[in-house]
Amino acid sequence: MEKVSYEVLFAEFRRVLDKHGFPLERSQFCARIFADNTRDGINSHGINRFPGFIDYVQRGLIDPSVDPLLEDAYGAFERWNGATGAGIVNAVHCMERAIALAHEFGIGCTALRNTNHWMRAGTYGLQAADAGCIGICWTNTQVLMPPWGGKTPKLGNNPLVLCMPRPEGHLLLDMAMSQFSLGRMMISAKAGDPLPVPGGFDEAGELTRDPAAIVHTKRSLPIGYWKGSGLSLLLDCIVSALSGGRASFQIGSGPDETDVSQVFMAIDLAKTSAGNAGTVVEAILADVRSAEPVSPGRSVTVPGEQTAKRRQTSQEIGIPVDPEILMRVRSL
Amino acid sequence: MEKVSYEVLFAEFRRVLDKHGFPLERSQFCARIFADNTRDGINSHGINRFPGFIDYVQRGLIDPSVDPLLEDAYGAFERWNGATGAGIVNAVHCMERAIALAHEFGIGCTALRNTNHWMRAGTYGLQAADAGCIGICWTNTQVLMPPWGGKTPKLGNNPLVLCMPRPEGHLLLDMAMSQFSLGRMMISAKAGDPLPVPGGFDEAGELTRDPAAIVHTKRSLPIGYWKGSGLSLLLDCIVSALSGGRASFQIGSGPDETDVSQVFMAIDLAKTSAGNAGTVVEAILADVRSAEPVSPGRSVTVPGEQTAKRRQTSQEIGIPVDPEILMRVRSL
Repeated sequence: MEKVSYEVLFAEFRRVLDKHGFPLERSQFCARIFADNTRDGINSHGINRFPGFIDYVQRGLIDPSVDPLLEDAYGAFERWNGATGAGIVNAVHCMERAIALAHEFGIGCTALRNTNHWMRAGTYGLQAADAGCIGICWTNTQVLMPPWGGKTPKLGNNPLVLCMPRPEGHLLLDMAMSQFSLGRMMISAKAGDPLPVPGGFDEAGELTRDPAAIVHTKRSLPIGYWKGSGLSLLLDCIVSALSGGRASFQIGSGPDETDVSQVFMAIDLAKTSAGNAGTVVEAILADVRSAEPVSPGRSVTVPGEQTAKRRQTSQEIGIPVDPEILMRVRSL
Repeated sequence: MEKVSYEVLFAEFRRVLDKHGFPLERSQFCARIFADNTRDGINSHGINRFPGFIDYVQRGLIDPSVDPLLEDAYGAFERWNGATGAGIVNAVHCMERAIALAHEFGIGCTALRNTNHWMRAGTYGLQAADAGCIGICWTNTQVLMPPWGGKTPKLGNNPLVLCMPRPEGHLLLDMAMSQFSLGRMMISAKAGDPLPVPGGFDEAGELTRDPAAIVHTKRSLPIGYWKGSGLSLLLDCIVSALSGGRASFQIGSGPDETDVSQVFMAIDLAKTSAGNAGTVVEAILADVRSAEPVSPGRSVTVPGEQTAKRRQTSQEIGIPVDPEILMRVRSL
């Protein structure tokens, strides 16, 4: 891996976005999100995804200059149309609206249709937390996982985010409904590494840790078997019903993933909490960390902590990126 | 299993609740919920739990006559104090308030502290759906599961409910964060049956399907390994911060589980949906059901469907109950 500075990465993203029709402010904004995601070690939704993002812009699947449109509003709820704009732009806007509604009503909720991939799901949870709100959001995705009891992929992996603000670093859960992403399994398959736990079914219908076998059968495993299957289904139903947008099966499983649907919720802790929010969260974390570790000397980590450490390291010694991908970005 | 009619079961619960100081209306109400849960096949949170519920009343851990108290209100959010009343009564009240807030603001949210076990989590999702709302709720629980990377139980199984209204029967996901409940594992251990998938770790630290080994180590498995561990933690943080009530570690792991904290959300579909909610949900379900089944001839089921079938059977041929437990209820 090659190390680059945040500034170099940001400038490179900006240059490419400017060139591809992103208005000034939006170009800065999207470059920052792509650079942030890479700095936090989420390269899959940072630099590694950037060339694909630009490809969508070039092919007209993402409109760089359009603004999301308000379709309906009722009290603490709003429905937005993403107008096939950049997913990052639409998602930040809709979480911003959910935060504004939360400031007014304690809780706010927005639903968004006709948008594009929002890259790192956690971005919008952190956005809510930076504004003093609990952030909850999810997206539907392409179809890529069979429902429990079935062999045919019918469910999206529909990432779900829960984020709790903390002065010491937000507590961030950002989880897809599949045990492993297809990307992760393809990397492990290429390296010949088994998965740490079963990630799907092989040709014989047995649970397996062999990523190549799962990529072949397309039978990746929902988290918690029947439970993650049910959760993925419900998240898709709710997001499609509230947004009026496409469900996973309508997004399909083709080479392009466009026109997805999302939900954003914010709860303003300053308005709603009993005042002990900070204290109780720190006490919970201290207690969890006091668990006897499975590996002696390694304490239990909590969601968001690993990312915060990667961010720290990136800031100290540079952001690790795949040199081939960096070269590709430079050529755009 | 002995078969009893709904009327017989309801009358028996009523008689016992009357005798133990439940005011008339509340006695009818709680008897109905216990009978409903048993009729739907959730005996673990119906008749099987009823003697324990009465024991809590007798020991003063549940106050049968108290009403929940409003502690704070801000827009679409309210915080309630359950005053150690019956968990069912408090939870129905708080979901009713969330529904009323959703009618007014599109989305409504209530948090509840100082309450008792709500029995079947799904009850409150179905309640929201009956009122035309998406229902989302969760509770924290006693500590009974180690966090990922740890050996000491520190997390609750914190059941989460998502419910989508449907004229043909609500879509109901009611899932705990542990792969299997302790009760389920003890039943399987007694019967000498292996679990269908790994449910925890054995003495050697290996994943196992042997329920007795897991009951022994107390290392039950979160759904999706690190993912369910993180989700359980976040649900506990959110519910404790919003309610001002106790976190799982404060509820502890003693023989009695009291003073838990809960969150209830309702989203009024008539106010918020784009109007295609019913259509898109049915289309999603039709597509999921069209998956090639793993077992030929058995189609994929969706969350809530099995329960609806058990309810149907109970209504046709009577409600199956353990004769020993029925006898115990009759003796109360």
